[in-house]
Amino acid sequence: MDTDPIRMGWMMGSPPPPDKLVRFADGSMSRFPQNRWANSNYRALVPTKAVARGPGPVAALPRSDRDDLDAVTFTPIGATAPMTWADALWANYTDGIVVLHKGNIVYERYFGALDADTPHIAFSVTKSFFSTIAACLAHEGLLDDKALVSHYVPELKASAFGDATVRQVLDMTTALQYSEVYTDPKAEIWSYSRAGNLMARPAGYEGPESFYEYLQSVKKLGTHGESFSYKTINTDVLGWIIQRITGLSLAENLSRRIWSRLGMEHDAYITVDTTGTEFAGGGLNTTLRDLARFGEMMRNDGQAQGQQVVPKAVVDDIRRGADPAKFTPAGYVTLPGWSYRTMWWVSHNPHGAYMARGIHGQAIYIDPKAEMVVARYASHHIAGNMGIDPQSIPAYHALAKHLLATD
Amino acid sequence: MDTDPIRMGWMMGSPPPPDKLVRFADGSMSRFPQNRWANSNYRALVPTKAVARGPGPVAALPRSDRDDLDAVTFTPIGATAPMTWADALWANYTDGIVVLHKGNIVYERYFGALDADTPHIAFSVTKSFFSTIAACLAHEGLLDDKALVSHYVPELKASAFGDATVRQVLDMTTALQYSEVYTDPKAEIWSYSRAGNLMARPAGYEGPESFYEYLQSVKKLGTHGESFSYKTINTDVLGWIIQRITGLSLAENLSRRIWSRLGMEHDAYITVDTTGTEFAGGGLNTTLRDLARFGEMMRNDGQAQGQQVVPKAVVDDIRRGADPAKFTPAGYVTLPGWSYRTMWWVSHNPHGAYMARGIHGQAIYIDPKAEMVVARYASHHIAGNMGIDPQSIPAYHALAKHLLATD
Repeated sequence: MDTDPIRMGWMMGSPPPPDKLVRFADGSMSRFPQNRWANSNYRALVPTKAVARGPGPVAALPRSDRDDLDAVTFTPIGATAPMTWADALWANYTDGIVVLHKGNIVYERYFGALDADTPHIAFSVTKSFFSTIAACLAHEGLLDDKALVSHYVPELKASAFGDATVRQVLDMTTALQYSEVYTDPKAEIWSYSRAGNLMARPAGYEGPESFYEYLQSVKKLGTHGESFSYKTINTDVLGWIIQRITGLSLAENLSRRIWSRLGMEHDAYITVDTTGTEFAGGGLNTTLRDLARFGEMMRNDGQAQGQQVVPKAVVDDIRRGADPAKFTPAGYVTLPGWSYRTMWWVSHNPHGAYMARGIHGQAIYIDPKAEMVVARYASHHIAGNMGIDPQSIPAYHALAKHLLATD
Repeated sequence: MDTDPIRMGWMMGSPPPPDKLVRFADGSMSRFPQNRWANSNYRALVPTKAVARGPGPVAALPRSDRDDLDAVTFTPIGATAPMTWADALWANYTDGIVVLHKGNIVYERYFGALDADTPHIAFSVTKSFFSTIAACLAHEGLLDDKALVSHYVPELKASAFGDATVRQVLDMTTALQYSEVYTDPKAEIWSYSRAGNLMARPAGYEGPESFYEYLQSVKKLGTHGESFSYKTINTDVLGWIIQRITGLSLAENLSRRIWSRLGMEHDAYITVDTTGTEFAGGGLNTTLRDLARFGEMMRNDGQAQGQQVVPKAVVDDIRRGADPAKFTPAGYVTLPGWSYRTMWWVSHNPHGAYMARGIHGQAIYIDPKAEMVVARYASHHIAGNMGIDPQSIPAYHALAKHLLATD
């Protein structure tokens, strides 16, 4: 089925006909294929805060388009027949993609409702922005990642996070009674989504009013630090810590440390709950080139525009990754031998590639050896890794090898 | 009482304490003094669409500050004792004000939650933007202001607007069974606000889902064309017509015709209802300098940056105003001899001053003779004219006379 949101006519007309509406209230914004429109229009659906780029000049991204990339082939995970890079974009419901090689744009495509000047939701790619900021705070001595969460946020003392360290939160080795299995309608992620106003609340709703109210109710299940378990709520705990330490909103933190220092083309924005708290776990919306600029700064050991934006030691620590033995039990069959460090996904492959990843196919893929950064926004009909990774991870690696071979 | 929103601590803290929250759901965002925070933070409370300034350079506003303006005195309407300009700003709960004289910033102040880079809601000042765009469309022959509304929007044929002309809508001489008296809790403006998602809906709400659904239900009361009667719904009818004619959203219309052509400093944004329709009657949010740039373009006969942005004939027609005899019956005691033309308020005073006006004190005041433009955002505790005008209209005129006298 052709699910291009423009050709499907979502939100076209004045007003759109009822069967072409995409709304918050009825949940259609989160359903496929309506999400192909919604993911490029989040601010028209939910409240948001601006992440200001400030008054500085735009950092030019030189362009040297490479027509040869479309024909690069790879074999998807679990498949036997090869696929081309160009075909993979369609197979992945890509909304837009930018590839930087040595800082030049070598490939840039937009589809459907996305264009170069429109922010798209980054979902969990958001996490890597705030974890990097937290790592900067730790480097500066303002945050002790060995300290307990409750040292910074006493409100969490009685929750599962009370006796977890900041490092366990950063590496998601906390032991929480909380399921993020999207196929389970009883999973706690749905309660969390209603608390944070990511989903409409049913009539008579009496649950938590905000992210932070919800976080205080999370119970412990197991022992912290033993193994990696991916749970978005860790990032909102981290966001709370960042706010407490800096006395600034998360949007202001992101603006001061990142958005105003990378020559971004556009302000970004971040969704907020009904009490104004930003969604650190997945609410950032950016243009694709600005997402790529963040990846490029990481690839350049934290430097951009002649400034050390993120300390090299922070980037090095992320790139080294964590212990893959703690990652394996989580059962990510598409990510064998990977690890999770400071809310980045680390491949431990021969190129030293690492990623920021978000549901439905959002990605920053950094390949240091190939000097390549891929920034991609997508609206895959499958939320999780099994839908997206088979035609993505090997495609990125094949592209990196092709760029190295043709250098 | 000091109602500075920063000193009052609205939305301070992570999270803010319950008694310092400003929210959409409980209506606190529209209550004084919480509105002093909310009016500079609308996008964090409701969904919005961006009005893009585009990639062009910012049009500099040269600065020549005039320290003498604070001491300018005037006598408020209905008072006997004089007041200074500086004192009037406090009396009016001003959030920010910019005065241009011959295109130079001679005065600029921000208070509370507003600063030079933060958009503030313009409320009904929004109307003058869309009416000016409609007048441009008429000038270009794309809109016939003598045609019936139902010619452009057949969905309104059975409503009060069915046999009204576009001109009657533009000048608000339609005869509608619709009250905009904010002190009356049964006034239709409240039903309209719930339809347009400007106010939270009560549990079990079964009213109209959108602005456009509401507009179709409005009944006629009297004869169109006889007298001026200020009703916001006229502007949303106009917005619907603009969308039909152009095939573009209101945000895109505003970006293409105004925001991308005046060298604006910042993107603006506009609130939307739950079906994505922009609030033409009052949803625009801009920075104060960008509001002033729009006023300055009007003062310069529609020219900005060497371009004719709005035809001179359109500006001339607005400045000439309408028949004050049709305005008088509306009973605006603070605006004697004024008229309302194309959703602008025309003073017919010796300076030929005219205004865009919004609830709680939003204003663009253009004084052609004094070559002065005042752009003001405020959060007065009284919604309507009787609260705001006594210390505003005579203050603007006194400032204009002072600038002329000291030229």
